[in-house]
Amino acid sequence: MVAPWIGALRDDALANDRYAYDITEGLTTEVGQRMAGTAAEARARAWSVAKLNAMGFANVRVETFDMPVWVRGRESAEIVSPFPQQLVVAALGNSASTGPSGISGEVVAFDSVDALRAAPDSAVRGKIVFIDHRMMANQDGSGYGQFGAPRRAGPTIASQKGALGIVVRSIGTDHHRGAHTGVISFADGVRPIPAGALSIPDAEQLVRILRRGQKVTMRLRLESIRIANAQSGNVIAEVPGRDPSLAPVMVAGHLDSWDQGTGAIDDASGVAIAAAAAKRIMDAGRPLRTIRIVWFGAEEVGLFGGLDYLKRHGKDPHYAIAESDFGADRIWKVNSKLGAARREEARLLGAALAPLGIVTGSFDEAEGSDIGPLLASGVPGVGLSQDGTRYFDYHHTPDDTLDKIDPAQLRQNVAAWTAMLAVLSGGIEAPRRRAKR
Amino acid sequence: MVAPWIGALRDDALANDRYAYDITEGLTTEVGQRMAGTAAEARARAWSVAKLNAMGFANVRVETFDMPVWVRGRESAEIVSPFPQQLVVAALGNSASTGPSGISGEVVAFDSVDALRAAPDSAVRGKIVFIDHRMMANQDGSGYGQFGAPRRAGPTIASQKGALGIVVRSIGTDHHRGAHTGVISFADGVRPIPAGALSIPDAEQLVRILRRGQKVTMRLRLESIRIANAQSGNVIAEVPGRDPSLAPVMVAGHLDSWDQGTGAIDDASGVAIAAAAAKRIMDAGRPLRTIRIVWFGAEEVGLFGGLDYLKRHGKDPHYAIAESDFGADRIWKVNSKLGAARREEARLLGAALAPLGIVTGSFDEAEGSDIGPLLASGVPGVGLSQDGTRYFDYHHTPDDTLDKIDPAQLRQNVAAWTAMLAVLSGGIEAPRRRAKR
Repeated sequence: MVAPWIGALRDDALANDRYAYDITEGLTTEVGQRMAGTAAEARARAWSVAKLNAMGFANVRVETFDMPVWVRGRESAEIVSPFPQQLVVAALGNSASTGPSGISGEVVAFDSVDALRAAPDSAVRGKIVFIDHRMMANQDGSGYGQFGAPRRAGPTIASQKGALGIVVRSIGTDHHRGAHTGVISFADGVRPIPAGALSIPDAEQLVRILRRGQKVTMRLRLESIRIANAQSGNVIAEVPGRDPSLAPVMVAGHLDSWDQGTGAIDDASGVAIAAAAAKRIMDAGRPLRTIRIVWFGAEEVGLFGGLDYLKRHGKDPHYAIAESDFGADRIWKVNSKLGAARREEARLLGAALAPLGIVTGSFDEAEGSDIGPLLASGVPGVGLSQDGTRYFDYHHTPDDTLDKIDPAQLRQNVAAWTAMLAVLSGGIEAPRRRAKR
Repeated sequence: MVAPWIGALRDDALANDRYAYDITEGLTTEVGQRMAGTAAEARARAWSVAKLNAMGFANVRVETFDMPVWVRGRESAEIVSPFPQQLVVAALGNSASTGPSGISGEVVAFDSVDALRAAPDSAVRGKIVFIDHRMMANQDGSGYGQFGAPRRAGPTIASQKGALGIVVRSIGTDHHRGAHTGVISFADGVRPIPAGALSIPDAEQLVRILRRGQKVTMRLRLESIRIANAQSGNVIAEVPGRDPSLAPVMVAGHLDSWDQGTGAIDDASGVAIAAAAAKRIMDAGRPLRTIRIVWFGAEEVGLFGGLDYLKRHGKDPHYAIAESDFGADRIWKVNSKLGAARREEARLLGAALAPLGIVTGSFDEAEGSDIGPLLASGVPGVGLSQDGTRYFDYHHTPDDTLDKIDPAQLRQNVAAWTAMLAVLSGGIEAPRRRAKR
């Protein structure tokens, strides 16, 4: 069923790929953090254009767009009484700034967003809200949706009830003293308030302090600045297909990162996996369909890159789209949504991936952050699901650094993406049996 | 051989002890960090006196002493070129202050202290020295001696060669972005220079950046203040023996901690284990010999508490001394140095501990930081060695927090210390077969 040349390309990637590690190492080392809309992200785009050209891709270009920027400043959280001590905090993206003198108030605690929602305004007004939760690690990462509510919904509800500020237990699964940042979107008309995440050990410390039953006063300083308009951009490159009239296959990741780490798992490895797989196809010969690599800008702070791509290219046909944005641990499942008429192709894809231990999941699902709007508009897609068991130990923390990348698992990702592109790109002209090392 | 009542006390501690966790939780929650000579350490002494009195110990007292104090200020490390980015750094104790404007210089790297020592002064003068190393985790913690050289010897050598400052790869075994601090002692006559530790991921990042072969410029800001004279103290409590003329058995830990974490494994758990074991003996009845609990002050910054105790009590007889200062993971080995005439007692001690899985090691060794000077002067001692495999993941970092304490392993520690005190304290009057729950 699966052509031998497809298996050979896949297995060569599994054993020998260096492209993905090279990109991941280079981007995290030579650029480091690359917060959306900043000079660091601009350096990342310049680095990417040079890298993609050096790798031999065609049509390497940047599509720029404007966006509002939020930048972290100095930040601290301190228990003033009854037990004076510093806690580790990180401002959430779009937090209001406390200014340098900070805010002080009594802490009022809730064990869920629902508990906050049910509280009378009088219990919250003028206080600093703390929301706890119990997120656990899951292979499919499903806890992030449900247990991310304190970060996503908490600040808006707290502001509506008149809170001075809010701190949440980091949306994560580790026990280290880096806080998990992430974006918040205050609902329309809601006044932004200072909003931060405590590291998980610090959130647990605060719970212990609160359990003593005394009034707890916190001083919170979360400085930040906003720039109304700055530039970001999507970096695009291609492996031209033999038939330019055919719709391209798009493989993607996002180039921007949060500012605390170097964005190794989020998402240097993602852009690396997508490009490495395309490069391995290119090394093997010319695919029938064009492969388009898109390294999106400004994903973390609101999918600005994905929305710009949608605006420019949403009406263009795409044969299939896929995005890698969940770290670099092994792929364990493939979902796809290619449409009923392409069921056989979806099955072939599953068969090409099965030797990597990958389970064939749904034929009616695909996912991706930047490509979400395109998928929602009906574009066919594939989802290669990575093992998320340890993803939320590092996600959006200072610990998202290169040492968290397991080279062997990274190669398994590239092998899967290479096999996927081999299946979807319509056949390679004069395929060599072994890709260039 | 081992009296049944000793086994019963040991096993009751293993199954049921709550004293040690209660102390560890209380001290780390209600006081938090307690840097030597600071107001926080003074609060810790007050907390300790109240706690030890509440537990029913006798002769609870503080022996104060004066000491010089070093306090951390703001700190940052930044690669200025060729790849601008922030690195995580922590000043080492007794580092010179850079002042608020920091220092900037070219980075010159060495893979060991020996390599630095061998370098000509001209290669170092006016530069910022970086020393790398390859410490690995070992059960007995033995890597700390050899691989701690960059921190202990590096700053002095760098200063002697005219370096502007020095950063070392943290002396640790983790891959998280907290730096491992620790004290440095500049040799006599050597001018202190700014000295910091990079977190291990940041040290590895710097190595990658240096490997690109371009000149690397770092800006380092390590602010700190010194107070010539402040107060610390040792907190002492006793279980009075039936025969006050006999030399006491001393069990110890240290009360002070570094400032980045809450000092859970270093050394709240140590003081807790020592006191919990003494409390369990007291619950069971009156020992023949007095048990003296000493919670030393100002260990981390130079053994000031141990030296004060030596000065005051070094001439007094002690039947045996022991200190817990290596976390709260399980005890795997017992060493002792009770003298040839007490070999049978040492063997009995080993037999009492064997049911906990503890190996009997040397009869000519004992160890401990604060009690080191006493041991060196010939006082008999016992060393209950904890498993250090993960100790240097957290040691002297922000991650030294309560969640790193495994309650089951903590109880095993208390069980071992209780058995040791049962053997050494000379028999309990009217021992109850089961200690009070």
